[in-house]
Parts: sequence; C-alpha cells; structure tokens
Amino acid sequence: MTLYISEKAKLGKNVHVGINSIIEANAEIGDNCFIEENVIIRSGTKVGKSTTICANSIIGEHLMDFYSNHQSKHQLEIGENSLIRSGTIIYSNTRIGDNFQTGHHATIRENCQIGNHVSVGTYTDIQGYCQIGNYVRFHSNVFVTQHSIIDDYVWIFPHVVFTDDPIPPSNYGLSIHIHSYASVAAGSLLLPGVELGEHCLVAAGAVVTKDVPPYKLAIGNPAKIEKDVREIIDKETGEKAYPWPERFSRAMPWEEQ
Amino acid sequence: MTLYISEKAKLGKNVHVGINSIIEANAEIGDNCFIEENVIIRSGTKVGKSTTICANSIIGEHLMDFYSNHQSKHQLEIGENSLIRSGTIIYSNTRIGDNFQTGHHATIRENCQIGNHVSVGTYTDIQGYCQIGNYVRFHSNVFVTQHSIIDDYVWIFPHVVFTDDPIPPSNYGLSIHIHSYASVAAGSLLLPGVELGEHCLVAAGAVVTKDVPPYKLAIGNPAKIEKDVREIIDKETGEKAYPWPERFSRAMPWEEQ
Amino acid sequence: MTLYISEKAKLGKNVHVGINSIIEANAEIGDNCFIEENVIIRSGTKVGKSTTICANSIIGEHLMDFYSNHQSKHQLEIGENSLIRSGTIIYSNTRIGDNFQTGHHATIRENCQIGNHVSVGTYTDIQGYCQIGNYVRFHSNVFVTQHSIIDDYVWIFPHVVFTDDPIPPSNYGLSIHIHSYASVAAGSLLLPGVELGEHCLVAAGAVVTKDVPPYKLAIGNPAKIEKDVREIIDKETGEKAYPWPERFSRAMPWEEQ
Repeated sequence: MTLYISEKAKLGKNVHVGINSIIEANAEIGDNCFIEENVIIRSGTKVGKSTTICANSIIGEHLMDFYSNHQSKHQLEIGENSLIRSGTIIYSNTRIGDNFQTGHHATIRENCQIGNHVSVGTYTDIQGYCQIGNYVRFHSNVFVTQHSIIDDYVWIFPHVVFTDDPIPPSNYGLSIHIHSYASVAAGSLLLPGVELGEHCLVAAGAVVTKDVPPYKLAIGNPAKIEKDVREIIDKETGEKAYPWPERFSRAMPWEEQ
Repeated sequence: MTLYISEKAKLGKNVHVGINSIIEANAEIGDNCFIEENVIIRSGTKVGKSTTICANSIIGEHLMDFYSNHQSKHQLEIGENSLIRSGTIIYSNTRIGDNFQTGHHATIRENCQIGNHVSVGTYTDIQGYCQIGNYVRFHSNVFVTQHSIIDDYVWIFPHVVFTDDPIPPSNYGLSIHIHSYASVAAGSLLLPGVELGEHCLVAAGAVVTKDVPPYKLAIGNPAKIEKDVREIIDKETGEKAYPWPERFSRAMPWEEQ
Repeated sequence: MTLYISEKAKLGKNVHVGINSIIEANAEIGDNCFIEENVIIRSGTKVGKSTTICANSIIGEHLMDFYSNHQSKHQLEIGENSLIRSGTIIYSNTRIGDNFQTGHHATIRENCQIGNHVSVGTYTDIQGYCQIGNYVRFHSNVFVTQHSIIDDYVWIFPHVVFTDDPIPPSNYGLSIHIHSYASVAAGSLLLPGVELGEHCLVAAGAVVTKDVPPYKLAIGNPAKIEKDVREIIDKETGEKAYPWPERFSRAMPWEEQ
C-alpha cells in the first residue's frame, strides 16, 4: 500500500488513510477521520474529528496565486462529523462548519463562510465569497454566484441558477440575498440582485426578476408575485403547507428524536 | 506498475487492469474486460465480459450505511459489452443490463434497475430507486429524481430536470412515469408526478405541469397540450416526423445491418 | 514518489510532474510546465510551454475507436500559458490555442478547433466538432452541441443550453452559429440552427427559437426580438451599456496595462 503523508502533516488518533492518498505538510486531520483512496489534502487544511473524505476528492484546492509561485499560503477549515463524497473539490481560504455534507463532484471555491449542517449536492458549484448560514441545503447542480448571502434553513432545489451581472459582461456583481426559511424550487433562475424574503417560495421553473417579499409565492417567466404561501394547501392532508417548518422536521433541530 | 487487486477478487481471462486501479475483495470481473487507470471497483461488484471501465471511475460506490461501520454488504451488477467512461460513479445495490454506456462524471445511485442498451450522458445524475427499461437514452446533464419509472425506447435530452416534491420541502416523492417511445427535449422541466404517454413529445424548454397523453405535444411554460405529434412534418423530407421509430433506427433493434 | 512517465515521452526543461501522474509514449510536454498529481496525459498529446495541468485531469482522452483495438492514433495540441483545472477531460484529435483555461470537471470532446484566450468553465460540456474563435468565454455548465460555430469575443454564461435536433430523435444536426461580440446570458436555451448576430444579447432564461439579428435583444420564452441593445442603459453610469467593448476591457486585447 502506497501512502503519501507528509511528515509535517498532523494526524489524530485512529485516522484511516486509503491507498494513494496524499496529505501535504501543515494539514491537520482530527481523530477518527476516514479518508478513502486517491484523496488530495492540500497544505493548510484542517479537518475536524470523525469526518469522512471519499475517493478522488481534492480538499484545499489551490487558489489562483498558487500557479504563479507554487506556494500555498491559505487555510481551509472543515468541521466535525462531515461527509465529503467522492470527486468533491473544495478550495482553500474557506471555512465550513460541522455536520457538513457534499454530493459527488461538487465544487466550492475560496472565501466562503459556511455554517453547520449544510449540504451541497452533486455538481453544485459555489463560486466563492459566499456567506451561507446553518441548515442550508443545496440539491444537485445549483449554480451560486460570488458574494451570495444565504441565511439559515434555506432550501435550494436542483438546477437553480443564480446570476449577478445586469449587463453581461460587466464588472458588476449584484449579489443575491436569500432570507431564512425560503425555498427555491427546481430549475428556477434568479436575476441579479434579487432578494428573497423569509419563508417565500419560488416555484419550479420561475424566472425571478424582482424581490420576493416574505411569505410570497413567485411563479412563472417572468415570475409574478401574488399569492401568499400560507394559502397553499397540502393536498394529502388538507392542511396548510406553509410555513413549512410547521409540518416538516427531518434533520432539522426541531425534529423529535 | 502498481496494482491493488485483492487476492479475493475474481478476474476472468484476458482482463487488463491499468495503473493504480483498485479491485476489492469479492469483486468479479468477466473475461476480456479492460479497466483503465485509477479505477476503484468496490467489493460486491460483478462486471460482465468485454466491458470497459475508463479512468477515475468508482464502480460500486458505498451507500450511506458504509460510513457508520465501514463494511460493504451490497452488490452491483453491470452487464456485458458496456463502456463506462472516465469519472463515472455508480453506487452499489443497483443492477444494470448489457451494452450499457455512460458519459463522463455521470452518477447513478443505489437501488436502480436498468435494462439493456441504456446510455447515461455526461453529468447525468440518477438519484436512485429508479426503474429504467431497455434502449433508454439520457443525454448530458439530466437530473432524474428517485423512484422515476422510464419505459423502453425513451429519449431524454440534455438538461432535462425531473422534480418530485409538490410542496418543497416535504417527505412526499411523487414519481414521474415516462412511457415507451416518449421524447423529452432539452431544457424541459417535469413537475412532480406527471405521466408522459407513449410516443408523446415534450418540446425544448417546456415546463410540464400535467400529464401528457399519448402522441401529444407539450410546449411552453406552462406547457400547453394541443397538437398531435403525428401532425408534425419533417421539413427536410416533407413527411410525418412522428412516430419517430418509423423514420429513425440508429442503434435500435429494428436497424437494418 | 511514484511516477509513470514513458521513456518515449518528451519532457522539456524544468517540468514538474506530480505523484502518480501518467505520461504516455509520444506525449510532448513543453518547458516549465507544471503537472499536478494523478494526471493522465495520453499518447499523442502536445502541451505548450508554461502550461499547468491540475490534479485528476485526463488530457488526450480516447476516442471511440480506441475501445475496439486499444491503440491510440490521434493527436491533441494545447497551447502555452494555459491552466487546465482539476478534473478536466479533454479528448484527443482537438487543437487548442494559447492562454487557455478550464474550470473543474469540464469536458471537451474530439475534433474541436479552439482559438487563443478561451475559457471553458466548470462542468461545461463541449460535444465536439466545434469551431471556437479567440477570447470566447464559456462560464459554468454550458452545453454546446456538435458542429457549433462560435466567433471571437463571445460570452456564454452559466447553464446555457444549445440544441441541434429539430425533430428529436433524428440524424439531423442543425448547427448554431454565434457571431462575434454576442453575449448569451445565464439559463437561456438556443433552438436548433439559430444564428446569433454580432453584438446581440440573449437575456437570462430566454428560449431562442429564431435568428437574432446583430445588435438586437432576445428576451422571454419564446424569445421576442424587438429592442436594440444600444438602447440599454447602464443604471450605474447612466451611459449606454452596449456595445459592451466600449465599456468593458478586462482580459481583452484592448485592456490598458
């Protein structure tokens, strides 16, 4: 078995490292971590205890400055009890909380602040400089522009696309802000600078061209904002479907154990 | 040359295994298989004869239960004469027929039943628990929700997005059923629970909010269902374009050799 | 440290090759190239000087004919000063100019001619047989059909989808032609055979069903073409936003140093 663990890397107790994995100098791996095969952990990465990093992932990917002088000077922090699935790439100079999860081939760029209990799906592409709260869930193939702000308990479903440029190409970057408990359904498109209010719902396939007030539904292309989400009925139960935390608790802090 | 083939793996005759590939215990590789470099074949995987597995693929990816006890107990079966292109990830506990193909970085999750002559394109993401017939073709970057049912000879073009949740987030999963010979054009979005009838056509960019009857065309956002596909004319020939099997045979069983 | 460099590969001066990388016979690597870990460079690939190839990339990927006889006979050329980010797959039988860049997990297929200063974003999928000019920028997750023609200084933003089949499935392939200085905003869909004129703008989320004349704006689903782009005002400056080269120069040849 061939391993490439730098003598200057710091491994905790009971760490498993798979075949052909590379752990560079000044990486710190917490106790009970499980690292599969062909993983690259770059210098300056700190991984919390009991985290799993699956095959072919690159953790602490180089920023652009590396390619001019081949020196790494950035740091990445990933919390405890996380599960980084195979093929994930996470840049350095980012900080991620505990109980983090990714799908396959996800990419997360530099200068992000990501809270606890966040999940980033397969092929989701977070472009960097984002502030992401706790219990935020990105499903598969979401595109998140730089400088996005996403508060707690936000759901972003597959193939949602953020934008930030009102007159492409330009040097502007109008950031999107999604407030807590908002839910953005699959295949919707968010135009530059829109703000989605607390508990709002963006319908599948909507093209959101202006702010969505709290508790409102945005639907269509371009999206119309009329209905209050509290008027939407769960057809199975005949009861109100929103605010969703009143009927949905899976993996949320209010879940009964 | 470094190889990591378990002594408990079972390799057929004339199997090529590339540099740095890992074949775990209780994997079975059929005669004349060609396995490129950096491939991981997990325990419990059975690959039919004359199948090619390209570089950086993970075949028999762990299910969630692996991460609690680090024991593999599932099985994956892939048929003969298949071509798994580089970067593909296929979970265990799935069964795939013969003459299967994938594009690059495709992901196929657990508990799928996939027939013969199926093709899954680059970045396509099949979320698991799906029933997929024979001669089904997924082009690039299709998102397929759990529990989808797709019959034979169905075509799904690039960036088609399935959905399953009528009141996101919820614990519902309204599955989509696509009947034989249906064709779903690029960039369309299928809302939860819709059923697409035999020989129907979903136009590019359509947002399908209700069932499409057999032989009907769905077009627009939200999709309108009016025209019969048998009224559509092939502009090149001046003849009827549908049902498509009457004019198209490439790689289909009715192709003349 | 384990390296797999063929004795028949030709490496220039001061080439760095990372752990576990494979360089096959008849590959040529220019002076001062930097090749990270787990890279595969196939036979017949020629890489210009001062190019960086990041981890887990496959450069010179096999065409379909390889899988019948396991012989490589194609050639790939990549220019100088390029940066191929991790997880990229580039097929052989393609030619790419200088100052090329890719994002992560990008895929570029065979028989493409790509000019200088081109950038191909994360998850972007170029299907082959394309002619791409100079200073063309594909952002993340663009799908480009075979035989597309894209002239100089064209911008294609995230999740833009090209199509080529007017009666899917068929053997037609109506190619898309995008003229110089056109800008195609995020999440738009281009129907088969459309031609986008010089300096035109396709708005985010548009479904383009017919040709867009030079300097026109296409917006909506289906896209309407009415306004001239020279009527669009940059809200920050109060000045005309288009033609964009009059106000935007970053990384363009007219940028003042």
